[in-house]
Amino acid sequence: MVPDTNSIQTEAETLCATARWCYGRGWVPATSGNLSARMTGDRMAITRSGVHKGFISVRDIIAVDFDGSSLTPGVKPSAETLLHCQLYRLWPEVGSVLHGHSVPATALTLALPEADAIYLEGYEILKAWTSVLTHEVAAPLLVVDNDQDMQRLAARLAPALEAGEAPIGYVLRGHGVYVWGADVTTALYRMEALEFLLATEIERRKLV
Amino acid sequence: MVPDTNSIQTEAETLCATARWCYGRGWVPATSGNLSARMTGDRMAITRSGVHKGFISVRDIIAVDFDGSSLTPGVKPSAETLLHCQLYRLWPEVGSVLHGHSVPATALTLALPEADAIYLEGYEILKAWTSVLTHEVAAPLLVVDNDQDMQRLAARLAPALEAGEAPIGYVLRGHGVYVWGADVTTALYRMEALEFLLATEIERRKLV
Amino acid sequence: MVPDTNSIQTEAETLCATARWCYGRGWVPATSGNLSARMTGDRMAITRSGVHKGFISVRDIIAVDFDGSSLTPGVKPSAETLLHCQLYRLWPEVGSVLHGHSVPATALTLALPEADAIYLEGYEILKAWTSVLTHEVAAPLLVVDNDQDMQRLAARLAPALEAGEAPIGYVLRGHGVYVWGADVTTALYRMEALEFLLATEIERRKLV
Amino acid sequence: MVPDTNSIQTEAETLCATARWCYGRGWVPATSGNLSARMTGDRMAITRSGVHKGFISVRDIIAVDFDGSSLTPGVKPSAETLLHCQLYRLWPEVGSVLHGHSVPATALTLALPEADAIYLEGYEILKAWTSVLTHEVAAPLLVVDNDQDMQRLAARLAPALEAGEAPIGYVLRGHGVYVWGADVTTALYRMEALEFLLATEIERRKLV
Repeated sequence: MVPDTNSIQTEAETLCATARWCYGRGWVPATSGNLSARMTGDRMAITRSGVHKGFISVRDIIAVDFDGSSLTPGVKPSAETLLHCQLYRLWPEVGSVLHGHSVPATALTLALPEADAIYLEGYEILKAWTSVLTHEVAAPLLVVDNDQDMQRLAARLAPALEAGEAPIGYVLRGHGVYVWGADVTTALYRMEALEFLLATEIERRKLV
Repeated sequence: MVPDTNSIQTEAETLCATARWCYGRGWVPATSGNLSARMTGDRMAITRSGVHKGFISVRDIIAVDFDGSSLTPGVKPSAETLLHCQLYRLWPEVGSVLHGHSVPATALTLALPEADAIYLEGYEILKAWTSVLTHEVAAPLLVVDNDQDMQRLAARLAPALEAGEAPIGYVLRGHGVYVWGADVTTALYRMEALEFLLATEIERRKLV
Repeated sequence: MVPDTNSIQTEAETLCATARWCYGRGWVPATSGNLSARMTGDRMAITRSGVHKGFISVRDIIAVDFDGSSLTPGVKPSAETLLHCQLYRLWPEVGSVLHGHSVPATALTLALPEADAIYLEGYEILKAWTSVLTHEVAAPLLVVDNDQDMQRLAARLAPALEAGEAPIGYVLRGHGVYVWGADVTTALYRMEALEFLLATEIERRKLV
Repeated sequence: MVPDTNSIQTEAETLCATARWCYGRGWVPATSGNLSARMTGDRMAITRSGVHKGFISVRDIIAVDFDGSSLTPGVKPSAETLLHCQLYRLWPEVGSVLHGHSVPATALTLALPEADAIYLEGYEILKAWTSVLTHEVAAPLLVVDNDQDMQRLAARLAPALEAGEAPIGYVLRGHGVYVWGADVTTALYRMEALEFLLATEIERRKLV
């Protein structure tokens, strides 16, 4: 369900509060990460390029269309905005996209240079995604090689995103997670669940 | 000793403050975990299903009877409420039950897929349980396979809970701990002690 | 240099603020740890037995003589008070003793069940002790088996404490550190330095 | 670009806020670390020797010239001030230098006693340095043996600092990082990025 919001002011406070919360949990160190919310008219509110998520304020949130062009004169969106566009275009029910950059997401994907998925098995918290009804699954977490060319990266992601049911999120190798949900709160809970899964999976692997 | 409380308002503030404290320590990420306190008349105050423990408020605490049925019209308790019921029915001296979902509890139990107990040996903090008078023991921490069917899970737990002295708590594999005490404060101190034990045991195992 | 303090009120605020600080850093989980400051007349102000260091208030600080007897009617000091007494009796320049109970101190000493010292080598932060002038040393950190009999434990510690120069502190196996200094602030800085050393030594050992 | 500041009061508030921020992230435990900002006239504002970065106030910031001599009568600068002098003298565009002392920086360099560089490969966050345009590099992080003689240490650093492009920072073994930037904010973001890299590199190495 798309939230009925057509004002960037409506979203800016929510995104800033969410950004500072994520910073405090270690998911978006320094200027890494970006957060967005869908607005009406195929537009989104999104954090501008290069802003520190622990010190962010509402003027750091800009409007961008679904081609990734800034609607805020003179302010450049992050290059990674195109990956947000891809998710909003693909699924109308997506109301928010969050991109993090944590130690566990970065370390685990760099430690598995050949993996195109990490299988998460036996985790109760997988039930944070309503598509997962039980812990008795080996849920695949999609891992994709990082790229500075976002068009190429989006093209690489497309087949996996468009095949079958939507995944629980994905990770860019050496870079971080993308999660989404019907609204910012749902996306935030999934980021927290996914970061929990990655932090725990790292510890589990060290013990076996 | 059962606290003399028969009002959900009396308990709601305490449970919310405790939930936020636990969230801040990393024991109940996102909407995981649940917390309850015994009320008179075979009822408990308990966190409702699906609430985020870092953002909880008093209206998220509901009354439930010891069959696990909600006494708050229209609000569903967590499925796991039945595990709280089991503990309150078993021991009248239990005044509060806390269920956490930490990285150490999840990682350690998934790394030991066959274990039905983790033996904790040489830990001074075991004295947080008054039944333990010395660190010179190998205290068993019961580990039980997770299950989405709570009746079946309670039945699986029953023999271990009912045999001999009450255990220091238990862990559902890939899911998290259950601890209890005469009141919320005592249960909280035991959750903290048990999470300390699990975090330390993980580090110890990596070093040997 | 012994601070010129002869009132427990003078010390209680300082000890409570220090206890809450230590709790926030993870050095004294739940009711573990204790903190004291020397008063005139062979007495100390010390945290009472069983108090949670994150929720402590000034009424939880009691006066105790150097035999470990409470001077606050009806309030029992911690059994470990005798280890504080030992340090105050041994060195008149000791104005404060802090006992912590961290994950690194517990995990590292349990992982080395035979060690009677941990040698810390190449660490710049060793200069936090004025007796250490360079990082180019292998400073021994005394490790002693835990014991519930404090008289026996003090007797076991005595030879190492009384031989030559004062050590940088010591660790009870599976239990935690003891550090001291001319005043509470100096002791706190040393606790922070020692906990840094233990946390770092654990990480170093996992990497080699 | 050198900031146009010629007053120590201008810098003291910024440096104190930055010191407390760094302390809260675990980068400057106890009295470790130091922070400086360039002033006009070949002078800098810098934290005094021995101050705790979590309890720092503006009176703990002193003025020092680029020979490392205190311009604040009676207050001694840290011995490590000479390393700040070296960086300000070498590059006029450096407006701030930060020295941290974290667990990851200390543990990783002590675990690699022979290394004179740590190669960081595949990390998106390397783009925090504008000289790095892509994650597809193996960026060398300079590691230098610690020394209590700062003249000798500066001489040891000089060849690597002066050869080719400025490095992303350096680490003193068993001691901690040095980073710099056009102003305090830029240097802080780089400290955060470098500490993220070290924390992640440690986790990656444990997994492979």
